Amino acid sequence: MTSPASAPTAALRETDALVIGAGPVGLFQVFELGLLGIRADMVDALPHAGGQCAELYADKPIYDVPGLPVCSGRELIERLQQQIRPFAPTLHLSQEVTALTALPDGRFQVESSAGTRWLARTVFIAAGVGAFSPKRLRLEGAEALEGRQVHHHLDSLDAAGQRVLVLGGEAPAVEAAVQLAEAGQAAQVTLVHRKDAFKAPADRLARLQALRDAGRVQVAVGQPMALRMAGDRLQGLDILDATAQTQPLPADHLLVRLGLSPRLGAIADWGLALERKLVTVDTARFETSLPGVYAVGDINHYPGKRKLLVSGFHEATLAAFAAAERVFPGQPIHLQYTTTSPKLHERLGVPTPGHD
Amino acid sequence: MTSPASAPTAALRETDALVIGAGPVGLFQVFELGLLGIRADMVDALPHAGGQCAELYADKPIYDVPGLPVCSGRELIERLQQQIRPFAPTLHLSQEVTALTALPDGRFQVESSAGTRWLARTVFIAAGVGAFSPKRLRLEGAEALEGRQVHHHLDSLDAAGQRVLVLGGEAPAVEAAVQLAEAGQAAQVTLVHRKDAFKAPADRLARLQALRDAGRVQVAVGQPMALRMAGDRLQGLDILDATAQTQPLPADHLLVRLGLSPRLGAIADWGLALERKLVTVDTARFETSLPGVYAVGDINHYPGKRKLLVSGFHEATLAAFAAAERVFPGQPIHLQYTTTSPKLHERLGVPTPGHD
Repeated sequence: MTSPASAPTAALRETDALVIGAGPVGLFQVFELGLLGIRADMVDALPHAGGQCAELYADKPIYDVPGLPVCSGRELIERLQQQIRPFAPTLHLSQEVTALTALPDGRFQVESSAGTRWLARTVFIAAGVGAFSPKRLRLEGAEALEGRQVHHHLDSLDAAGQRVLVLGGEAPAVEAAVQLAEAGQAAQVTLVHRKDAFKAPADRLARLQALRDAGRVQVAVGQPMALRMAGDRLQGLDILDATAQTQPLPADHLLVRLGLSPRLGAIADWGLALERKLVTVDTARFETSLPGVYAVGDINHYPGKRKLLVSGFHEATLAAFAAAERVFPGQPIHLQYTTTSPKLHERLGVPTPGHD
Repeated sequence: MTSPASAPTAALRETDALVIGAGPVGLFQVFELGLLGIRADMVDALPHAGGQCAELYADKPIYDVPGLPVCSGRELIERLQQQIRPFAPTLHLSQEVTALTALPDGRFQVESSAGTRWLARTVFIAAGVGAFSPKRLRLEGAEALEGRQVHHHLDSLDAAGQRVLVLGGEAPAVEAAVQLAEAGQAAQVTLVHRKDAFKAPADRLARLQALRDAGRVQVAVGQPMALRMAGDRLQGLDILDATAQTQPLPADHLLVRLGLSPRLGAIADWGLALERKLVTVDTARFETSLPGVYAVGDINHYPGKRKLLVSGFHEATLAAFAAAERVFPGQPIHLQYTTTSPKLHERLGVPTPGHD
């Protein structure tokens, strides 16, 4: 699929369908829309497609997708990406949707945190458990330092000559410490974790050990307790060590790599009917309380709802049919079968077998 | 799966779930029931699993099963059979369900055309477009001769010394004519078809040609018009040939091999709420008007219904959860994930990855 990771800021993109969330259900939403002749734009908070399947289940086996006796989250995403190739959506990554406004002409204006703006005929919320964003450091004063001395991404940090504490014990923290040390610009790189044991791919752990042996990465064991400030500048971090002693760690920057957690984000503010932080839909069209806006997958709620892939795929299918009535007003929307329909074969880019 | 093709006639089989129809949705129904700890019996009119996928789409590509970019009907059935292997249902083939009676204790007594009788806690109608049965010869008097001189299956015909007309132009007719001629017992084997062109696998066509060259199979070209009778005995068949002349073909037996057509059959008589020959269900439990009886796949109807595999799989899933409440009364039915649940791993017969 085409993938302009950061889209132009100013232009207003017109689209028949905007799919929010590039997880498995969002990807299949693009497929069902494509079969009906509707092209989609997609937006996702992560820098890649896959949603929960990529973040939580990449290497874990899934056994209950019909026709796939066993399949990892990564493999499922790859299969779905292959399946939607004929309908390649324009993918807008590393950005969350922020505002959604219903316009008088029945369309929707949608904006993202990266400044992308859409004029969309239909909107599909396939946001799963919400947008994945970095877990924050819950210490007093940390939020005010974000972007200056407290960071969540390596690329927002200019480490030259600086003492950097990397917080976390899993792959994102290990990877960041290794990259910082190997770049060789930081004055000091210290991994801070509650125990001297790290979870990451074996080759990264080996690399970390080599850097520790060479004195290029330090490890401090303890629980972050408080920021040490001088006025509005960070001076260091106090941690509580295994002997319940407070240890001061001097630092110019904190790189917080505690993993990702999902949050519903701006979607909660769009005035859609919600039930326990889930978007209420009907079961014929999977439409929200705002006609033209559909919700599919783990984020929706209706009587009998189970948060399962097999249900999300069904919901996306019926939502696509409902949206087609809106995109092609006054035209009958027929059910056609991919086994036999020449029109669907043309859209899929596959040959129609000759009649014999 | 275990497959006693003809089950004992007298015994009353007790089962928690009886699935009617061994097509793709029926097979996945068994899977979802199995995940919830419910074993199922299955019954199907055909001599094999697969339903429409086997009869109509065996070699045709299906493009819209999520995660399977392309897959033939046969492959989909093989994949589903592999997927349900941990929950191997007892399969009762070549028989249609006939009677269903709700008992005072909440269970159902069900009977099949082969005399199988079940005492079932829950019943799932996954009968697709209906039971596939042989297309009948629509000539006056033909029905009265069924089982004596008009046959639909080779195995009901004792051909020794008899003149047999095989009616049809596709694989079932070609195969029957070849088998009859090769058995060498019939006095005469004649294929009757409206043109001298047959559709069957290449090796069968080659075999047919060899038998024709050897004079062991005749071909008569024309349209069946009337049975020739002497009292209540069949003497032959009149056909209308290409020149609009009536040709009398002497015969002792007709073997009617015109293919299969689906029919709803006895299900229409069970008192379930129907809408245009489809079984009405709700969208939270996919339950019919008779509590404990569920309908899934192409045979059901509800607002928004589309006859698609992806919807049948969802329906089977929610129906399984609804049935679990009935099979395990008073017990909470939790949603568990196949990626993480040790209980589901045990049921699936797969290892649970260790925590590290």
